[in-house]
Amino acid sequence: MKSNTWQSESRQTVTVDLGDRSYPIHIGEQLLSDAQLLIPHIRGKQVCIISNETVAPLYLETVSTTLAAYDPLSIILPDGEEYKTLDTVSLIYDRLLEARFSRSATLVALGGGVIGDMVGFAAATYQRGIDFIQIPTTLLSQVDSSVGGKTGVNRPLGKNMVGAFYQPNCVLADTSTLRTLPDRELKAGLAEVIKYGLINNLSFLNWLDENIENILALDADALAYAIRTSCHEKALIVAEDEKEAGIRAILNLGHTFGHAIETAMGYGNWLHGEAVATGIVMAAELSCRENLIKADDVERVRSIIQRCGLPISPPEEMDVDTFISLMSRDKKADQGKIKFILLEELGKARVSGQVSQDVLTSVLESLL
Amino acid sequence: MKSNTWQSESRQTVTVDLGDRSYPIHIGEQLLSDAQLLIPHIRGKQVCIISNETVAPLYLETVSTTLAAYDPLSIILPDGEEYKTLDTVSLIYDRLLEARFSRSATLVALGGGVIGDMVGFAAATYQRGIDFIQIPTTLLSQVDSSVGGKTGVNRPLGKNMVGAFYQPNCVLADTSTLRTLPDRELKAGLAEVIKYGLINNLSFLNWLDENIENILALDADALAYAIRTSCHEKALIVAEDEKEAGIRAILNLGHTFGHAIETAMGYGNWLHGEAVATGIVMAAELSCRENLIKADDVERVRSIIQRCGLPISPPEEMDVDTFISLMSRDKKADQGKIKFILLEELGKARVSGQVSQDVLTSVLESLL
Repeated sequence: MKSNTWQSESRQTVTVDLGDRSYPIHIGEQLLSDAQLLIPHIRGKQVCIISNETVAPLYLETVSTTLAAYDPLSIILPDGEEYKTLDTVSLIYDRLLEARFSRSATLVALGGGVIGDMVGFAAATYQRGIDFIQIPTTLLSQVDSSVGGKTGVNRPLGKNMVGAFYQPNCVLADTSTLRTLPDRELKAGLAEVIKYGLINNLSFLNWLDENIENILALDADALAYAIRTSCHEKALIVAEDEKEAGIRAILNLGHTFGHAIETAMGYGNWLHGEAVATGIVMAAELSCRENLIKADDVERVRSIIQRCGLPISPPEEMDVDTFISLMSRDKKADQGKIKFILLEELGKARVSGQVSQDVLTSVLESLL
Repeated sequence: MKSNTWQSESRQTVTVDLGDRSYPIHIGEQLLSDAQLLIPHIRGKQVCIISNETVAPLYLETVSTTLAAYDPLSIILPDGEEYKTLDTVSLIYDRLLEARFSRSATLVALGGGVIGDMVGFAAATYQRGIDFIQIPTTLLSQVDSSVGGKTGVNRPLGKNMVGAFYQPNCVLADTSTLRTLPDRELKAGLAEVIKYGLINNLSFLNWLDENIENILALDADALAYAIRTSCHEKALIVAEDEKEAGIRAILNLGHTFGHAIETAMGYGNWLHGEAVATGIVMAAELSCRENLIKADDVERVRSIIQRCGLPISPPEEMDVDTFISLMSRDKKADQGKIKFILLEELGKARVSGQVSQDVLTSVLESLL
């Protein structure tokens, strides 16, 4: 039985409500060739499309044609988290300077999360801030980095340690681009989709339980509904707490454990979504041990993640000490104190810094 | 005869009014050792003082002692505009990461404009933004970069091309630090002080006419009054137009010509204030040629700048073509169209993009 709120609609729009920095996220099929979605958000005459070596051959020509009136510049970066650095962003700055791009220029980020984060940071800092548009082409970036304005790059000592909060002028989440996405990345993106159900929307979690297979089969309506709902949930939370002073932290469910896995395994060996998937199971276990949710609830979390083909157990290479040491260095940790997001019930999360070392150790031991 | 508005007061405070990003500028003697001015603006427990090789030997110990309760980290950078780069900022990021500085940390910028701009940018971008306090130790930085939140670094293709608008939590402008400032830099700072009189406050210009010699002699009351009035004038304009969408541009009087001089001569050969001083004379000439101010007004501008020991003529090495080519590449130029700030009268400025090539060429020819 499908939920009544799920309707087949080819195009949908979610508005991220941030006062004078509000912006629309358009979701649907074949959006890349629709100039009318982009042109109202371009103030000046200079446009630069920035993509990577994987995505550019697939979609750069389409977007360039859509924006032909601006004779857009394009920059193609190497693909991969290891290029999410200040050196790569400097390359963007210098190409823009060579082309004499002014403060009224617009950058278009065409690619996944790495491209979105780097182009957003370049836009936030080129001449102290220019316009940018995001065209996320992975499920993860469509449901995650498309909302919230987190931009940035990595340093050798930590991921996303340099960055800015900076909002795009608009986002196009074109579900047809997901047809070229490797299956493993589609699944990884689902971890974040499930997260929205778990932290804030039980009926969405119920819908996902019934429709995971449709999403995995790339059913256009199921994809559009899942993306719209995910963006809507995140937009509500971000509108309430743009700079992550409080409630926004619940978006990090599974991320404290997940980041530790990513760091320990080396970036790229476990995808972000895979590490978060396991992290969500671990956070559910911790919530159960803290007497918040029941063992049945944990099983339900484990089951839906497993049905997505995502890992439910941390890597064998990691031990309790490694987890604790890496988690205490997390960006969200305050002076070594680890912050966890716990589930009060399915569909409701809260921030907690109150987990005792004993409980944490015992949960880690039970899972490792 | 001194103006009635000028009173001897050892300490004064100007508030920069930017809603929830408002902050105080404390002006006076011996502020560096007053912990009560700083402590209310420090939220967390981690503090890092960042200075350079010239200023650190003079004042780092004093400030470190004042903040001893925080056991502050310190970073000493090389001195000079040529170090205002992403590489230097990366050095700051990595020292903060090594010391596990969290998002509740505070950076203290102790030095001139280069230190203020770089530390401000590091604060704007470290973990997407942490607190910072500015302690400007040059006249130029006390009257200019202490207000307005412009932070950033240079690229090989242009000054300040990478940056962010980011406001400090508070500013200490300690006039006693000016006693260790080289005479040439004190004079250079006066160019910006005179600018505030010219663009927005005729009575301040009149006061300066009568008190330039007191300032050059480092009279504490004259310095405090000049700095307070300059900060106040800039604060009024910035409060009206934080992101430089319009009126804020009048703060660039003399800067279009000045930046061309700095670029042509190589940074450091002409100090910023020296280039701006000459630029102000050139802008006054242009305003006269546009039938806005009278020849007598131009002479008055030339005279006060000359009395400060500042240059009133562009360098002999530059010709008309060099000026025009460099000015059309300025950050403020929009797609090659040069923007000038003109004086409608002494004490009133406006933005103009309307100067014809003929008029510009004829003014440049008359001065070169």
